[in-house]
Amino acid sequence: MTLRRGFLTISQWAEKIENALAHPQDVGPIRNIDAGDERPFDAIFIGGGAAGRFGAAYMRAMGGRPLIIDRWPFLGGSCPHNACVPHHLFSDCAAELMLTRSFAGELWFPDLRGKIVSIKEVVDLFRKGRTGPHAVMNYQSKEQLDLEFVLNAPAHILDAGAVEAAGEIFRARALVLACGAAAAPLDAPGAHLLGVHTYASIVETLDKEPGPTIVVIGGGKTAVEYGCFFNATGRRVVMLVRNRPLDMIADGETRGYALDRMREQGVEIVEGAHIVEIIGDAEGRAARVIAETSTGRLEIETDFVFHALGERPHSDMAVETLGVEVDAKGAIVVDDALRTSIPGVYAVGDLIGAPMEMFKARKSGAFAARSIMGEAVKYRAADWPDFLHTHYEVSWLGLGEEAARARYSNVVVLKLPPDTPDGLNVGLPAGDRTMLYAMARPHMSGFQKLILDGDTRRVIGAHHVGYGAKDAFQYLNALVKRGLTIDELGDLDELFLNPTYFIQLARLRAGQRKLTSM
Amino acid sequence: MTLRRGFLTISQWAEKIENALAHPQDVGPIRNIDAGDERPFDAIFIGGGAAGRFGAAYMRAMGGRPLIIDRWPFLGGSCPHNACVPHHLFSDCAAELMLTRSFAGELWFPDLRGKIVSIKEVVDLFRKGRTGPHAVMNYQSKEQLDLEFVLNAPAHILDAGAVEAAGEIFRARALVLACGAAAAPLDAPGAHLLGVHTYASIVETLDKEPGPTIVVIGGGKTAVEYGCFFNATGRRVVMLVRNRPLDMIADGETRGYALDRMREQGVEIVEGAHIVEIIGDAEGRAARVIAETSTGRLEIETDFVFHALGERPHSDMAVETLGVEVDAKGAIVVDDALRTSIPGVYAVGDLIGAPMEMFKARKSGAFAARSIMGEAVKYRAADWPDFLHTHYEVSWLGLGEEAARARYSNVVVLKLPPDTPDGLNVGLPAGDRTMLYAMARPHMSGFQKLILDGDTRRVIGAHHVGYGAKDAFQYLNALVKRGLTIDELGDLDELFLNPTYFIQLARLRAGQRKLTSM
Repeated sequence: MTLRRGFLTISQWAEKIENALAHPQDVGPIRNIDAGDERPFDAIFIGGGAAGRFGAAYMRAMGGRPLIIDRWPFLGGSCPHNACVPHHLFSDCAAELMLTRSFAGELWFPDLRGKIVSIKEVVDLFRKGRTGPHAVMNYQSKEQLDLEFVLNAPAHILDAGAVEAAGEIFRARALVLACGAAAAPLDAPGAHLLGVHTYASIVETLDKEPGPTIVVIGGGKTAVEYGCFFNATGRRVVMLVRNRPLDMIADGETRGYALDRMREQGVEIVEGAHIVEIIGDAEGRAARVIAETSTGRLEIETDFVFHALGERPHSDMAVETLGVEVDAKGAIVVDDALRTSIPGVYAVGDLIGAPMEMFKARKSGAFAARSIMGEAVKYRAADWPDFLHTHYEVSWLGLGEEAARARYSNVVVLKLPPDTPDGLNVGLPAGDRTMLYAMARPHMSGFQKLILDGDTRRVIGAHHVGYGAKDAFQYLNALVKRGLTIDELGDLDELFLNPTYFIQLARLRAGQRKLTSM
Repeated sequence: MTLRRGFLTISQWAEKIENALAHPQDVGPIRNIDAGDERPFDAIFIGGGAAGRFGAAYMRAMGGRPLIIDRWPFLGGSCPHNACVPHHLFSDCAAELMLTRSFAGELWFPDLRGKIVSIKEVVDLFRKGRTGPHAVMNYQSKEQLDLEFVLNAPAHILDAGAVEAAGEIFRARALVLACGAAAAPLDAPGAHLLGVHTYASIVETLDKEPGPTIVVIGGGKTAVEYGCFFNATGRRVVMLVRNRPLDMIADGETRGYALDRMREQGVEIVEGAHIVEIIGDAEGRAARVIAETSTGRLEIETDFVFHALGERPHSDMAVETLGVEVDAKGAIVVDDALRTSIPGVYAVGDLIGAPMEMFKARKSGAFAARSIMGEAVKYRAADWPDFLHTHYEVSWLGLGEEAARARYSNVVVLKLPPDTPDGLNVGLPAGDRTMLYAMARPHMSGFQKLILDGDTRRVIGAHHVGYGAKDAFQYLNALVKRGLTIDELGDLDELFLNPTYFIQLARLRAGQRKLTSM
C-alpha cells in the first residue's frame, strides 16, 4: 500500500500495524515515499529503530532526503516492541508488587503473602498495549517528521549504494546500517527447549503461565530487571551468575544496598555458576536446570528459564554482502564519523557495539546523518549517566567511591542514610514514591551518595537507589560534565521532598573551606 | 537535660523525641551547648526549621558559632512534622490509590470500586513514622553538623541581642528570626468547629474517620494536594475555589490536563465560590457547608472541611518585642542581605513571605549566615522551578506557552502526546511509574511540553504532568538558566524511558536551521 498523500490518524495507524503484525504477508509492504520528490536519496537507513529513525529524522530536519526500510510494520525498532518498553512495564510491576507485598493486608493493600500473580497477564497487557506507542511513532515520523519509509519489508543489501526491498531497488549516495542487536544465545544443551526465554521471546511466544520456580541465567542489567519482576510475582527466583551480579554499578556500597534489598525480597543469587544443561520433559519443555557452582552441583526443577547474557549485533548481512569489518563480538567497526570500512557505508546503534544504550543509538544515528550531510563531526559515547532496575530504580554517574579514592587524594562523601550504629533503619531519604516505606519500612526507603573531590570541590560521582531520580541524572550529569562544584550545587533550588537529596546535602557542607564527609 | 558530651544514636533520639512530644513539660528543655567553647555566639536562630537549621549549619561550617532555639524537641520545623512530609505521604497514597482504582479487579489489584479507605490510618501511620526523620535530623545536626541547640523550649526575645529560653538568657551579636508561618485562618462562621482542618491540624488532632463527603476550601497547591488524596480514598470531594484553581501552573494546556485528570477522578471543582458559613451539630462538629456561587447558593452536608488559604508568617513576637517592619501580609521585610529594619536582626524562611518554599527557606538561612559572618552577599529568589501534586506530580519551570508567545515572536513548542484528531488517547509519553497507564489507560500516562525561543534556540519553558520528573526539574532549571539551547539539550545522554522526553524531542528538531513546533 502507498500512503504518502493521505493523512493517517494514530488510530488508523494502530489498526494498520495490528493487521500487519497478525498477517504480515497479506498486508505486504507499507510504502510512504514522496513520488513528487525527484532528488536522489541522501541515505538509506536499514532499520528504523532508535538509531535509524533518529538518524533519518535528523537528516530530514537538515533538509536531506533519507529513506528508512524496516522489516517491521512500525518505526522505533525493538525498544517499544519487546525490549525497553516491556522492561519498564515489568519493572513498574516489580516496584508496585514489592510495595503491595510490603504492606500486605495493611491500609488498602491486598494480602498477597504466599500468592503468585500472573506473569502472562502482564505480558498480554503489554502485547495489547504496545500498538499505541508504535502508532504514535509512525504518526510522528510521517506527519510531523516528514520521513519517507518502506515498512513491513526486509531489506536486502545489493551493494554500498543499492538496497532491494518490497520488490524494488532503492539507491542512495550513502547506506546507514542500523539493524540493531538481539539477545546472545545460551550456549548450553537444552537452550532450545520450550520455556527457555529471552526478553524478546517472553513477549512474543510465552504460551503458558510459568510455574512457581524460575531460573535466571546472567547477572547483568536485563537479568536483574526481569529476575526482580519474576520474584515480585511471588515466585522463587534463582539467579545463576557467572561472575559478580550488578558489576556495572560503580559504587560498592550502592551496589550492596541494591543487592541486599533484592535478597531481602527473596531473590536467590548464586555466584560462580556455570550452566551444565537444561533437561526437558517428554513434551520438549524445560523441566530442570543443572549447574556447577563453587560449592558443587545444583539441580533446580523449573519450567521457566530466562537468560540474558548480553547482545549480539545483527551484522551478518553486512558482512556477507559488503564485507564490512567487525570486531570479535560481531560489532561493526566505525570511526568517529560513524563510517565503516566500506566507503559510503555507515553503521549506528547497537550494531556498533557497547554501550548498547538508547542515547548512543539515537545520537550515533543523528551524527551519521550530519556526517553524510557534510558536517565534520566526531561522536564517541563518553561519561554518560547510567541506570538499571531492581525492584527499585538504581541510577549513577561518574565515579564510585572506590575508584574516586584510587584517583583522588581528598575524596569527600555525602550520603543518606548516614553511617550510624543504628544501621540503615532510618526514614531518610524519603521522597516521591518512597513515602510509605519511609514511614513504615524505613530501611527500604533508599540509599544515596554524592562523591566530591575536596580539592577542586567538584562533584565526581553520584549514586541513587530509590524512585524518581533516574530522570534527574540526565541533567545532573550534564552539570557535572561542566564542572559542577559543591558550591554551585548547593546554590540550586530544590523541589522538596526531592528524591535526590544532593542539593541540600551539598548546602550543609558548602560553607566549609576544607570539605569533610557526612 | 544536657547532651553535649554523649553520643546519641538515632534510636536514642527517636525515644527522646517521642517522650518529649507526649510529655513536653516532664521532659523539659533539651540543651546541647558546648560549655567548653568560650566564644560568644555569632547568632541565635529562633526556630530550627528549614531556614534556621540550614542557616546555623552553614554558619558552623564557616567556623562561626550559631545557637538554635526551638519550641519543638526536634530540628527541621514543621516540614517533617506536619507540612511537606505528610503532604508527600498523602500524595503518594493518592497516586497509589488512583492506580489501584484504575485497575480495580485486574491483575493483582483489589477491587476498590465504591469502597472508601481510611484517612485516619494513613494519618496514624504518619504520626508513628515521623519520629524517624526527626531523629535523623537531630542526629545529623548534633553529631555531623556539630550544631549547638536548645530544644523543647520556646524562645522569648528580650532585645536585638538577647533571647530567653529554658530559664536562661542567651546573647549573640546577631539574631536570626526563623519562626516560619502557619496556615491562614478561615474567616467564616463555624471555622472553629470540630472537623474543620488545616494541613497541620489533620495530623495533630484528627479524632475520627471523616465521612463520605469532604469539602475543600481553596484552589492552591495545598488544597489540591489534600483534595486529591481525599478523593483517592473514595470520598466525594467538593473544592470550593474563590478564583481559578491551580492558577500557579504557568502553562494553560498543562494546567488543563492536570484539571481534566482531577475531574475524571471525580473531584468536583466549584469556581467563584464564597463560604457563607459552616453549620455545626449539637456536639460542635461541622455538619454542613453553605457557600454562594455564581450559580446560586450551595449547601453540602459534610463532617469534614479542609481549608488551605495560604500561610501567615509568625511575625507577631518580633513585631511586639523588636518592632521589626512587616508588610501587609505580616511578612518581615528584609533587604537582599536578609537584614530586617532593626540592626543586627535578620529574618529568613517563610517569615519573610513568598515564595514559601523549601529552597528559599534553606538558602535564605544560609545567606543570612554568610551575611552575618561578613560576606557581602545578595539573595533574592528568582527563576526557580516549581511543582505540586494532584494525583500526579506536576512540575514546571520558565514560561508557559501563553506568556512565551506574548514575549517572543518565534515560539516553538515540542510536546507529547501530539496534537492529533485522536486527542490524548495515546500511550506516549510512557515512563517510570506510568507504564501500566501507558499500556492500558493511555490518556492517563501524562502530558509534557517544552517551549523554545526559535530565534536564540534557547529553552524558555518546560512543563510536565506524570511521575519521576520532578527531581529532574531542579537540574534542568539550572541548565536553562545557563542558556540551554535545543542543540545542547539534544546532545545530552538520556536514560530511556526517561519520564521527561525533552532530550529526544529536542534532538528530533535540532537538525532544523529554522525550528518548527511538533
